[in-house]
Amino acid sequence: MLQPVNNWRSYLPILDVIREYRRDDFHHDLVAGLVVGVITVPQAIAYAFLAGLPPEAGLYACLVPMVIYALLGSSRQLVVGPVAVAALMVAAAVSEYAPAYSDAYLGITTVLCLQAGLFLLLLRLWNMGGLVNLLSLPVIAGFVNAAALLIIISQLGAFTGISGGNPASPLDRLLDLAANIDQLNSTSVIIGVACAGGVWFFQRYAVASMRLIGLNLPAQHPISRIGPVVVAIAAGIAVALGDLDTRFGVAVIGEVPAGLPAFTLPPFNLDLWLDLMPASAMIAVVSYVESYSIGTTLATRKRTRINSNQELIALGAANIGAAFTGAYPVAGSFSRSSVNYQAGGRTPVSSLICSVVIVLTLLFFTPLFDRLPHAALAAIVMLSVLGLMDLKSFRTHWHIYREDTVTQIVTFLTVLGFGVETGLITGVVLSIAFFVRQSSRPHIAIVGRVGDGPHFRTAKRYDVETFQHVAAIRIDENVYFANAAQVENKLLKIVHRRPSTKHVLLVCSAINLVDISGLEMLERINQTLDRMGITLHLSEVKGPVMARLEAARFIINLTGSVFFTTDQAMRDLGERL
Amino acid sequence: MLQPVNNWRSYLPILDVIREYRRDDFHHDLVAGLVVGVITVPQAIAYAFLAGLPPEAGLYACLVPMVIYALLGSSRQLVVGPVAVAALMVAAAVSEYAPAYSDAYLGITTVLCLQAGLFLLLLRLWNMGGLVNLLSLPVIAGFVNAAALLIIISQLGAFTGISGGNPASPLDRLLDLAANIDQLNSTSVIIGVACAGGVWFFQRYAVASMRLIGLNLPAQHPISRIGPVVVAIAAGIAVALGDLDTRFGVAVIGEVPAGLPAFTLPPFNLDLWLDLMPASAMIAVVSYVESYSIGTTLATRKRTRINSNQELIALGAANIGAAFTGAYPVAGSFSRSSVNYQAGGRTPVSSLICSVVIVLTLLFFTPLFDRLPHAALAAIVMLSVLGLMDLKSFRTHWHIYREDTVTQIVTFLTVLGFGVETGLITGVVLSIAFFVRQSSRPHIAIVGRVGDGPHFRTAKRYDVETFQHVAAIRIDENVYFANAAQVENKLLKIVHRRPSTKHVLLVCSAINLVDISGLEMLERINQTLDRMGITLHLSEVKGPVMARLEAARFIINLTGSVFFTTDQAMRDLGERL
Repeated sequence: MLQPVNNWRSYLPILDVIREYRRDDFHHDLVAGLVVGVITVPQAIAYAFLAGLPPEAGLYACLVPMVIYALLGSSRQLVVGPVAVAALMVAAAVSEYAPAYSDAYLGITTVLCLQAGLFLLLLRLWNMGGLVNLLSLPVIAGFVNAAALLIIISQLGAFTGISGGNPASPLDRLLDLAANIDQLNSTSVIIGVACAGGVWFFQRYAVASMRLIGLNLPAQHPISRIGPVVVAIAAGIAVALGDLDTRFGVAVIGEVPAGLPAFTLPPFNLDLWLDLMPASAMIAVVSYVESYSIGTTLATRKRTRINSNQELIALGAANIGAAFTGAYPVAGSFSRSSVNYQAGGRTPVSSLICSVVIVLTLLFFTPLFDRLPHAALAAIVMLSVLGLMDLKSFRTHWHIYREDTVTQIVTFLTVLGFGVETGLITGVVLSIAFFVRQSSRPHIAIVGRVGDGPHFRTAKRYDVETFQHVAAIRIDENVYFANAAQVENKLLKIVHRRPSTKHVLLVCSAINLVDISGLEMLERINQTLDRMGITLHLSEVKGPVMARLEAARFIINLTGSVFFTTDQAMRDLGERL
Repeated sequence: MLQPVNNWRSYLPILDVIREYRRDDFHHDLVAGLVVGVITVPQAIAYAFLAGLPPEAGLYACLVPMVIYALLGSSRQLVVGPVAVAALMVAAAVSEYAPAYSDAYLGITTVLCLQAGLFLLLLRLWNMGGLVNLLSLPVIAGFVNAAALLIIISQLGAFTGISGGNPASPLDRLLDLAANIDQLNSTSVIIGVACAGGVWFFQRYAVASMRLIGLNLPAQHPISRIGPVVVAIAAGIAVALGDLDTRFGVAVIGEVPAGLPAFTLPPFNLDLWLDLMPASAMIAVVSYVESYSIGTTLATRKRTRINSNQELIALGAANIGAAFTGAYPVAGSFSRSSVNYQAGGRTPVSSLICSVVIVLTLLFFTPLFDRLPHAALAAIVMLSVLGLMDLKSFRTHWHIYREDTVTQIVTFLTVLGFGVETGLITGVVLSIAFFVRQSSRPHIAIVGRVGDGPHFRTAKRYDVETFQHVAAIRIDENVYFANAAQVENKLLKIVHRRPSTKHVLLVCSAINLVDISGLEMLERINQTLDRMGITLHLSEVKGPVMARLEAARFIINLTGSVFFTTDQAMRDLGERL
């Protein structure tokens, strides 16, 4: 999968797919595409409502964007389209500006799409794709857990039939629901619970049940994912047969306009564009991280790799495609990509098949959704985001790296309390702060010779040979502004504690970077030691660090020598009594 | 100077001074104290005006705060009192709330003092003194240059006699001066230029001139610093003799109230306190950094050390003392501390002598300041901050570490354009961003055996022996969220490029930290390589990193072994063909 970088063909990965395509592949892609297409329909409609958009916007998000990604994406199994987290972020960003389901709301959503797409392309252009790495795993874990909880809370209204305002804070929303508990529509709740139970049953027992009738399927068989389709159909039939909507006030989707999406132009209004930028950037980054990590996971299983730069282009273009077809921001879907993989999808052709299913749905099957109850969709959304939650990591990470658990919890709480953008930014800032704090307290060890050999280890953990008159000190960190004072302090303390010291040897094997503040500190140490009659030596200095030390004339002013290895240094200094 | 940490005596360093005090010391301290006292008077008055305060506030800042620092400070030569940069920061913070020289202005200034003092004590209490290390050298250099320029611009009004508004931006201020150029008082300008020339002459040629009359003084003799005293006296006499104030409208200080400071209580107003907090924190941090770096420089010359924690206490208490005596924030003065050192000051007793000089001045000599022209003070301030400027470092740093030069220039420009707080925060954020960026692009090297020896170096720079079936890879950076994806990518690229690889050995000598994101990446690599039929091994893993790898069960799942040294690993793996 490694392609030469400056080849225009590398920008159109579909060409490689076509060149290598075999008849056998199509058989697999067809099956996978049909399965994914069928399970996509209820998800797309449900996420559209989550985003505050009409159901067809969800289906449109599976057309042009999905096809664009199939042509440009470097992952062979990733399925791009509507996803729950992006839908939540759209709802949070747009609901300030327009009422849900209105035309203005859809217009603003397409602006978000367009900006997110352009932002991804800019990241590619500026070679800044690495920025997304600032979202550490704990930040993502905290964010996803909070987002899942926010999504579940946002679905409670549809689940219970309780309407009411749309307060920004999840706590207010829960209080709001409790205050209006008298509006509870018990038929809706029954439908919701039944649907949730149905989806859960399929996830857990579909494969096992098949075994009862003699079919031995693998545990991850796509049949475990078709629950949403089955319950949606069942719920729609139940409503239709029992006239549950007119008789018991069960809220249903109502008419979905048939036909393919028309070309739409996102509205342009400078103030609005500027206001939306932070939200768009967040949506872009989160969508990219989500897509990239799913893509990597699937590619690794097939022992191929995906190209992060090409993914920026593909996802950026897909979102721009969404903007011009009245859809909403798209990303790689974890559930549908897994189904695609499990169902045997081999190439992006399965995504093309999937969009054919969506086209057919839009042309011929929209009347089927008329009486689909909202409670069923809410149940589908809730069960699907439950799968994203991961509470175990809070605890396991605590034993490995506490700072990361703190970051995870703080991100979780700030996303819940102050929204997605504030939460993610807080998480990133906290991760960086912890990293800087950690590297500002470096481990500094006196090292000595292990046995007679050429190896040196810390005198604290190992029984090593040292000299009275030589302090061999290993600094286990980059020497830079945040720890320069600390390093200086520790070095001088060691020297003060060993009055017989005549030589200080800095073992630099773990120093990868020295900045100006670090350099000035080293120069000061060199002078201070000189005044105390102590000579300063270096060993195992890495190339890039050496270049800086030379540029700063530190090596010329150094009172001692630079040794290639600590072994040589200690042989030499050991004899200079 | 290393004192046991939990000894109450260590909180009162003056006790050690008294115990070791000899008659000979007093002789030196007396001379130094008198010299410093005399040069302090005009500086204190000049900085008071710079801060927007009446002249006596400057003198008060040399009394209680100076005595408190003498009792608590761990530096023996540092002279604490009014300084130019803190005065500028006071003016910037307080001028929003009250007109300069008013009682309200002084009240708000004492709040700043109190908050800055409390903030320093809190930093000590929370053991967060290390926070000040976030101000890297380039940030400080950029800030000091900008502050010096701001101070010089702020003095142009007094220098030229042009009054006018006090616009926040230095550019507006220059335009303002240009627009009101008709107000220019040429007598003031002549006095200012003459005084500046006089100070400059003393700085440059006082020692050389003494040689003409047969006195051979060292180049750094305090006589080079008494220029301000001489020109202030000369200017005062000139104004008095020529009635320049009444005849030519030369602005003079006017009456300075005689007597010692009274106890003052900083006003309490919650909103005001909250508003001032960021400014106070900045003043505290900058004052501490300034004091600590001067203290360290002087202590190093005497081969002693200063205690950073004790300095937080001493400077915090000194500022609280300033708050209750109607003074303004104090810090270690670079110029007066140097004079103290050069004049032979040996202990904080010289600071006590200095405050006696100030007491005598306040009691008996205030009438002498009546006709001291503002232009002379402006000249003194301008010359003194010119000494703080350092433009050379912009260029020298560029050749060593470009990012630091960028940080320095950006800090300089943002301090000029958006004020001290925004500038410093921008500088700190930029330093951290560059550091994270640097460590997010780690150097990853294939290493091999140098000659027949036990040492391994990068195959790019050295002629080393490697094996076809073993990729020994050294990661020259901590493995954490910002570079985990990058490291994974590079490792897999190396493996893809060498199809005969059967073993990957990660040489961990430069890895000091692995976080959760890094761990997950390593686990993924372990699995990916396993699927490719490649075994993953580690060597030279540091203790703390090993502990984390074990806690995360990575070592148990590792397909290969952990070797103590790369030498052992390569001997072992070399034979496993």
